[in-house]
Parts: sequence; C-alpha cells; structure tokens
Amino acid sequence: MKHKVLNFLRKSPFLFAPVLLIATALTPGTTLAQTEEEQFIRQVYDTALVHGKSYELLRQLTKNVGHRLSGSAGAQKAVDWGQQVMQELRFDTVWLQEVTVPHWERGKAEKVTLLGSGKDKSLKLQALALGSSAGTGPKGVTAPVVMVNNFDELEQLGRQGVEGKIVFYNFPMNPSLIKTGQAYGEASPYRTHGPSIAAKLGAVGALVRSLTTALDHVPHTGTTIFEAGVKPIPALAISTLDAEMLSKKLKSGKTQNVYIETHSRTLPDARSYNVIGEIRGSEQADKIITIGGHLDSWDVGEGAHDDGTGVVQSIEALRILKALGYQPRHTIRAVLFMNEENGLRGGRKYAEEAARKGEKHIAAMESDNGGFTPIGFTVDATQEAVAAIEALAPLFKKYQVNEFGAGGSGADISPLKPQGTILIGYRPDTQRYFDIHHTAEDTFEKVNKRELELGAAAMTSLLYLLDKNLE
Amino acid sequence: MKHKVLNFLRKSPFLFAPVLLIATALTPGTTLAQTEEEQFIRQVYDTALVHGKSYELLRQLTKNVGHRLSGSAGAQKAVDWGQQVMQELRFDTVWLQEVTVPHWERGKAEKVTLLGSGKDKSLKLQALALGSSAGTGPKGVTAPVVMVNNFDELEQLGRQGVEGKIVFYNFPMNPSLIKTGQAYGEASPYRTHGPSIAAKLGAVGALVRSLTTALDHVPHTGTTIFEAGVKPIPALAISTLDAEMLSKKLKSGKTQNVYIETHSRTLPDARSYNVIGEIRGSEQADKIITIGGHLDSWDVGEGAHDDGTGVVQSIEALRILKALGYQPRHTIRAVLFMNEENGLRGGRKYAEEAARKGEKHIAAMESDNGGFTPIGFTVDATQEAVAAIEALAPLFKKYQVNEFGAGGSGADISPLKPQGTILIGYRPDTQRYFDIHHTAEDTFEKVNKRELELGAAAMTSLLYLLDKNLE
Repeated sequence: MKHKVLNFLRKSPFLFAPVLLIATALTPGTTLAQTEEEQFIRQVYDTALVHGKSYELLRQLTKNVGHRLSGSAGAQKAVDWGQQVMQELRFDTVWLQEVTVPHWERGKAEKVTLLGSGKDKSLKLQALALGSSAGTGPKGVTAPVVMVNNFDELEQLGRQGVEGKIVFYNFPMNPSLIKTGQAYGEASPYRTHGPSIAAKLGAVGALVRSLTTALDHVPHTGTTIFEAGVKPIPALAISTLDAEMLSKKLKSGKTQNVYIETHSRTLPDARSYNVIGEIRGSEQADKIITIGGHLDSWDVGEGAHDDGTGVVQSIEALRILKALGYQPRHTIRAVLFMNEENGLRGGRKYAEEAARKGEKHIAAMESDNGGFTPIGFTVDATQEAVAAIEALAPLFKKYQVNEFGAGGSGADISPLKPQGTILIGYRPDTQRYFDIHHTAEDTFEKVNKRELELGAAAMTSLLYLLDKNLE
Repeated sequence: MKHKVLNFLRKSPFLFAPVLLIATALTPGTTLAQTEEEQFIRQVYDTALVHGKSYELLRQLTKNVGHRLSGSAGAQKAVDWGQQVMQELRFDTVWLQEVTVPHWERGKAEKVTLLGSGKDKSLKLQALALGSSAGTGPKGVTAPVVMVNNFDELEQLGRQGVEGKIVFYNFPMNPSLIKTGQAYGEASPYRTHGPSIAAKLGAVGALVRSLTTALDHVPHTGTTIFEAGVKPIPALAISTLDAEMLSKKLKSGKTQNVYIETHSRTLPDARSYNVIGEIRGSEQADKIITIGGHLDSWDVGEGAHDDGTGVVQSIEALRILKALGYQPRHTIRAVLFMNEENGLRGGRKYAEEAARKGEKHIAAMESDNGGFTPIGFTVDATQEAVAAIEALAPLFKKYQVNEFGAGGSGADISPLKPQGTILIGYRPDTQRYFDIHHTAEDTFEKVNKRELELGAAAMTSLLYLLDKNLE
C-alpha cells in the first residue's frame, strides 16, 4: 500500500500536490496555517518525548525537596528550587510573589485505636489527621463512636445523639462514576465540612472514611475547614478497610469506644511565595497567558502526582517553546502556586495582584489532576470561548487527546474568573489518581515517564495554539 | 454513503441489523432501541465497577497459578483453573480443545558477562534468553561482540564481519511514536528474526536490546524464530541500560568480549488446551461471537498484563451478561487461547476446528494489549464492517472510549480472518505496557483494579452490541 502511494508520487510532476489539492477545499489561509500548526505540534511532542526534562525535574522536586506543606521548611525549599530551575532555563524574568499562608503542622504521628472490650482485642486503625484539625495532646480523647452514612443521618441524630461522641462519616466514593473527580466531588464535603458540622453538635472528634474507591489500608489526608466561630476538634481520615471494619462492628449494635491521639497544631500564618517565570510576548506583551500547577503538597509522600507533575509540566511547556525557538506573541507565564491544598492563598494572591496591576490575563491553564496520560481539556469560559477551544480538537486527534468541552479548570486559576480570563483544566486519565491522592504513596515511582511527558506535550501544544490564535 | 453501507450489509453473509446499527435517529423505534442499549451498557458498567469479579480472577491466575509458558506445569495449572472458573460460573458448556504446543524451557538462569581487559573490570549484564534460542551448556560461549544498529548494517558487515562473533542488535524503540505498539512493531523484528539472520552469517550468539522505551535494568524476553534449516544459536535480550553501556564501550573501538551461558532447551512438543466456555444463543445458536485472550505467558513475572487481563476480561464479559439476565441471540464464547507467545498454535487450532466443523464465526474480539484504561477498539474487516462498528462509537462517548477505526485485532483470533469473521482488537492506553511487557515485573500489582474493570465493561458492552445488532 505504501509503495503504491510512493510510486504514484514519484511519477507525479507535482510532488505531494494531491495533499494541497485536497486542502484547497477549505480557505487557503486557514489550511496553510493549520499545516504549520500541525508541524509545530509534532515538534512539541518530539521534544517532550525524546528530549524531555519533565521527568528529571520531577525527580528533583520529589526526591531532593520531598513533601512541602505550606509554611514548612520543605515548602521554602521548593520555592528556592522552582526559582533556580526557571532561572537556569533562562526564562526572561523569574520572580517570587509573596503570599501569607496558613501554617498547620501534623507533629508526632497520630494514633487511633478501637478499644477492645470483653473478648474483642484493641485494634489500631490506619489514620492521618486532617489539615486544620485540632491536636488532642498526649492524653488523647476517648469516646464512643457514632456512625453516619451522610449528613441527613447526622441531622436526624441531632445534638443529643452526637454530643460527647466521635462522629464517623462513612460515605464511600461511588465506584460506578467514570469520572473519578465526580465521585470525589460527591464525597469530599464529608472531609471538608463534616468535622465542623459535627463539632457544632458537640462532637469531641471526627473520623472520615478516606476518599478513594480502593479498599486498602492507606489513609488519605486532606484539608478540613472549621466554620468561623466553631472550635476545631480532632479529625482524621481512616483507611477504607478500617472504615469497613468499624462499620461492621457498629452495625452489631455494641458500643465502640475509640481512642484518638493527635499532635497537630496551627501556628501563626507564615510568609511564602508563588514562583513565577515569564517569557515576554513579541507582539502583545501586555496580554498574559498563564500555565501552572501548585507547588505545595500534603505532608506525607512526595506530592508527586499532586501536584509535582503540574509544576514540572508548566515549566516544561515554556522550556519546550523556548527550545523550539518559538517567539510567543503574548507574554506566557509558568506559575507555581503556593498553598492550593489548605487555603488557596497563592491563587487568590495571584489574581489580586493581576487586578491591582491592571494585567490582562487572556487565558490560564492548570494541571492539577495528576501526571497521567492526557485525555483532553475542559474550559470554564463563555460558550464562544469553549467552542473556539473545542474547534482545536482535530489537531489533537492523532495524539489520542479527545475530550474537549465545558468544565472546571483548576483551583489556583479560578480566582482569575472575574477578570474574564479563559480558564482551562488539563484532563489526564484519573482512574489511578485517587488510589494515591493525599497519601504516603504519592511518590515519584508512581509517575510514568511517558504519561508525564505526553501531558507536558499536550499542554505545550495548547499553550502554543492559544498564543497563536487568541487576540 | 449510508445507502451504500446498507446495500453492502444486505449482501454480506453476516448481516448487521441495519436499522438499529446504522440508520439511527430517523424513526421512533430506533430511538427507543438506542435508549435500551444505553441503559443496558450503563448496567454493564455498574456491574463491572461495583460487583466486578475480574480483579479477583486475575489475583487467582497470577498468584495461585503464576507464569505459564506453553508446555510447563504452570500452563496445565492455568488450563485447569480456567475450566474450573467457567464451570463454577455455570456457562452452558465448558470444554478443552486439545492443542499440540512447542515446549521450550529456560532452565537454570542465564549469565551474560562483558569480560574485562586491562583496567576494565568484568561486568554482568541483565539478560533473559529468548524463547526458542539454543543453550550454551555449562561451558558457555565466549566471543567478541559486533554491534549493528539495523539489518542494513548487518548486511554490510557480511559473513566476514559476523562469523564467530556475537551480534548485538541495538535498535531502540522510538519514543516519539504515540502508539507504543507501532514502535514495538518497528523494533520487534530484531528480536524475532535477528538471531536467525545472524546465525545464517555464522554468528555464535546474539544479544538484542530489550523492547521498551524505558531506560532501566530490566531485560524483556520474547520469542525468536529460527528459519527452517538454520541451527538455533544462543540469543538473549539485554536491558536497555546495558545496551547503552555496551554500545558506548564498542564505540571506543576496543574489542569487547562477552561470555554467554544459557541452559535453555527445546523439548518435544507437548499436549495442551484452549479453554472454551460458551453461552448458547437463543435465536441463532449456530452463529458464534468469540471473545478471548491468551492463557499462556512468558516464564518470568506473572503474566498479569500479558495476558492475564485479557483472560479474565473475557470470562468477565460472559459472566456480566449472564448476571444481568441477558439472553444472547447468538452463541457467545470466551476462549482462553494457549500458546500465543511462542507458536500461536491455540489460535490456529481454534480456527481450524471452526472451519472443520463448519461453525459460523461472525465476530471475534481479543484483549491482548494489557489491562489498562480502555480508549477504543480497532477493527480488521471490510470497510463496511469497520464503518458499522465506528457507528457504535457514540454509545461509548460518555465512558471516554473514543478511538474506533480500522486496525489490527489480536494474534489468536487472526487465523479466523479467511472465514470472514469481523475481527476486533480491544485498545487500552498502552503508555505503560512496554515498561513491563515480557519481564519479571509483569505482576498483579502492576494492574489497576478500575482500569481492568473499565476494560471488561467496554468489552462486554461491545459484545452485547454485536450480539444485538449482527444478523
């Protein structure tokens, strides 16, 4: 088949003319431009896959820096690393944007024990204290557990059923949802708001079933938010297998007492930074396109998929464009946001400063769903902007990136929305994401080099297309 | 266009029900039918993701049986397991189809040493003997290495450059290709045919760079084929990092001597079996739709992604349809093929028996690309049949299964092609596949439960649609 085509072309007086002839069905200008775009995107992929730096950058961030919760020494180390990397890559300008961040510390490892009685032995549960939760101190807290499957059940119990007790939220992530983020969205209010709601009813502690569809012994931490005026209580995530076990024991009807010991504390707010690297636009330098991920992570594991991958992909996008000698029309920025996990102070600060300085942010893209194989992009903007980005989908078809449409973007860039910025979320295949999200297992080894690089390539390609096609 | 397809299908020996499959959205009946199909597919996914058995079946096959090269005790154990599982699931008929298979044994672990000279120390290379390669016996073989980057270079060297030497094929898999299978297809002839071609020129051994884009210490085995009349020589795959190291040393110009010791041997052909489970059709029992994977594996690791996942997904597909009370119109079969890896005897036997008995195999689907997130299906059939399957794509859109089109199917079902069977290949995201393919690392732990289950659901859904819509 190939040979037939080749032979035909060799005999033809106008080599490759058939391709151009087919193309003239469309307007000539569009066609030529699209061919140029197709070629450039191919170069982007080649660079990312053959001469990529994202994997090595991720190794540095996860292995040399490690985890990096806001306010920690690790976070400062990550800031220094990000600044140095972008300086060494010779981006036009690299700077730190000061942000005041919350400073919560886990302290000594937590303990959760289901206390035995009669023939039942005491059992240690796998648990992690939630960000912003209170410490019990060395004496701990012991109380009977009351389980609820949802907020309605808690409301029915009321103060008399909850006061003095430890509330156990046993709401599982729904495995039948194809988009794991949707299942996370359904279940996460129990972690984010459950402890505060329980505290208001007099609970002395809260246990939350870990946010994952996996059944295993790995607890998943994350942030919890105590409403203004509510005194924080100790609150922990327990592994799904422990949640199943505890649920079974409670269903037997016997009172189950649990001992909780946590050493976490909230310190005064700390000084930290967003790290920003920029390549100045050649035509419209006053208009900015931002690409980013968040630099902070939870204080277990290495913050590899969450969100080391987004950080290195953002740096890599600018590096690739520079390596290919591309002169961006607009100013393009890689932004490593601080404090996505427990405050969003970096994202808010970035949008505030943009508004204060009168910067024109025309588009922003975030990668904060893990460094897995890219499947598409979601757009949070006007219908027209969504349609314009959907119209780029054919350019990604051969790279197996197929999902384009309206949807969320990323927490850090969302505060730009009132400024009319087109917000774009990078969408990888997240089937494995919630197995390791916010756990000790979110390590470099869980990131696949090719998947990470394909993500960087897809993001770089879209960044290029935005720069080329947006006014 | 539509009419052409319809006309063809009416003439086809295996008719599609054109109203349902192709001419959608015009009549109310069609709409209802499609709604019914949508609802059924949703139930398939719910069953696979919430009450799935594929992961537990894979655990049994990988952990209780383990690896299972044709002719080995493991292969027999796998046959017994497959038969028992399908009997316990109460498929209408379960039987063994006898197949005579090649019986190659690795024997004691192989050794490959780059011999030191002068200041250079001897270095052990990570290597695995290739299937069908000859053993050196305990005395081993020592010879200088000659490296070639491709077959052209070997031809240029000719007999005088090769005789008495060990040929080292250093052709890397191309990382810039998005479809990893394409890169594998380019590089695999060096493993499959390279040793035989070298032997014809008088080489005393062959080393082949492992077929992976990963740079690591893991050797990847696989089959090699000696042409009739060519005496097999020792042949091994070495890890990519060792290939890089050896290449560097050879480029320095100094003679590099390598010691090879392998204990492999080819025994007389052995008796083995395809394992077949069937649910009898309610309307057209004489027409068969087959779904399958291969039961044999390489003799390292656990044959998890290759092809334990295909095996359990095939069983799971029939189980799910049965669990949902679906009465197939045609006879549907799960076939666990023996000997895909080093002979394809099972696939050939299955097609031979089908032809001999006059069975009408209208469609066959194979999963042999790993148990990763499904991205689509490729179809090896007439243009019209390809178009008919592509027309089903909208039903898979919400499950993020987007890639439908012409392409390969699976080695085991390919011998059915002359019988006019529509051949379908299950396509998962294979970015990680060649990191572990044919290695000691292809274990149960490398398979993600959700990804495996999503694959089973996609395959079951397509099996259902084929049964519902094919005549």
